[in-house]
Amino acid sequence: MSDSARSARAWLRRARDLRDRRTREAEGSCIVEGIRQVASAVETGHEVEALLVDPARLHSDVAWAAVNDAVERGATLVDLTSRDMERISSRDNPIGLVAIVRWAPASLSALAIEPDSIYLVADDIHDPGNLGTLVRATDAAGGKALIVLGGTDPAHPSAMRASLGTSFHLPIHAATSHDELFAWADGRCRTVATSAHASGEVWDTDLRVPVAIIVGNEARGLAPETVSRCDITVRIPMLGTATSLNVSVAAGVLLYEAVRQSRS
Amino acid sequence: MSDSARSARAWLRRARDLRDRRTREAEGSCIVEGIRQVASAVETGHEVEALLVDPARLHSDVAWAAVNDAVERGATLVDLTSRDMERISSRDNPIGLVAIVRWAPASLSALAIEPDSIYLVADDIHDPGNLGTLVRATDAAGGKALIVLGGTDPAHPSAMRASLGTSFHLPIHAATSHDELFAWADGRCRTVATSAHASGEVWDTDLRVPVAIIVGNEARGLAPETVSRCDITVRIPMLGTATSLNVSVAAGVLLYEAVRQSRS
Repeated sequence: MSDSARSARAWLRRARDLRDRRTREAEGSCIVEGIRQVASAVETGHEVEALLVDPARLHSDVAWAAVNDAVERGATLVDLTSRDMERISSRDNPIGLVAIVRWAPASLSALAIEPDSIYLVADDIHDPGNLGTLVRATDAAGGKALIVLGGTDPAHPSAMRASLGTSFHLPIHAATSHDELFAWADGRCRTVATSAHASGEVWDTDLRVPVAIIVGNEARGLAPETVSRCDITVRIPMLGTATSLNVSVAAGVLLYEAVRQSRS
Repeated sequence: MSDSARSARAWLRRARDLRDRRTREAEGSCIVEGIRQVASAVETGHEVEALLVDPARLHSDVAWAAVNDAVERGATLVDLTSRDMERISSRDNPIGLVAIVRWAPASLSALAIEPDSIYLVADDIHDPGNLGTLVRATDAAGGKALIVLGGTDPAHPSAMRASLGTSFHLPIHAATSHDELFAWADGRCRTVATSAHASGEVWDTDLRVPVAIIVGNEARGLAPETVSRCDITVRIPMLGTATSLNVSVAAGVLLYEAVRQSRS
């Protein structure tokens, strides 16, 4: 086996190991797949350990520019066979580019509250695709940061994929408990719970900055204790037969309503 | 092989055949997985051909009530082994209930325009999970119908799953072309295109009923020809680094803004 083949085997093993959350958390690195996602990691200056490339599949100039940038800054370039790429890809039709990037959520204590800010808190979100979509929506609405509290890992490959690279731009912080979250917000940032039982509808409720909007688990929503600790509860009216919205859709409605109110 | 085992084999084959869009379209039936989804099909009076049940897995009283209702109305009850259930399930952890239901989108010509109505048009949506989430969001916002124009099939198992049963409540119609869509709306319902190039932001644009909001393909958005044929174009401001929102999130923001404006 040649040195480069041996190196490819080692990086493949590392990519597979990083599918496991404990490995990601212990090592502070994650797997990032997709052109826009990898380009974002490179352009925001995150350290790229390795770029795993299937040259037969990767034809995008944007992708190759990002690869070259990262290699110039010290990333290892690893050529994979199409078969090996299929093994590590989470896509049915791999684009041919996977990066191993040093990235992990920061601690909540490192997040300062600024007066004109919207924060989104993802409380016990189960599906990594939803968590990534929440990152993307928070970034799009000009949110200052996303705070993850329990649930799935923002460094999960599917979360990284769904964020479309915004995970490298938007600050992402992890709260270790509800106590830490409410102590962080206390007196400096109003906390808003989404609840089907809230008396106020989204448009009649003051969501002006600084505000932290908390959305809950896909099946169970927010725990009643969490709702009761929030400064404000708010309800998005359900006008058909659905009893709830997808969590990312609900977050989008609330984030943009906060933007609307904060402007007017 | 016993008669019931032979029957189970035949239904399994039918469930597998219905994964294929052409089979669904030719036969007007689809596969529906999940408790809320199957219960919705039964409670809305849709004809259930068969219920495929893994008794070892299915413990929900709500599920069994729906199963019993459907069987009373003539559905065939088929016991599956856990292994066979895993074969037809699209879930990593099957809940133990799959139904074969007569359901297909209606034609657009069958959809009357009512003056107080919001419609959502899903134009070339690629991902069935997104399409199902659009159905759910349209239903939640009190939309009158979802109109599918090209793209994936609303009867796809993943679309059915993501709609959480709202596909059986909300009217879903298929337009065969943009010409048909714009002829349907002409003079009776304003058409709204989402476009990054629109001059008006969502809050400054008249979205009052009757209105048909058109959202486009996940990667490409709406075609410029489609945007130019619409009565109104609207932009959701992108305030971070993201260049777009997930299509369901964008639809949610627009649908609820139409609700807000139509009320005030």
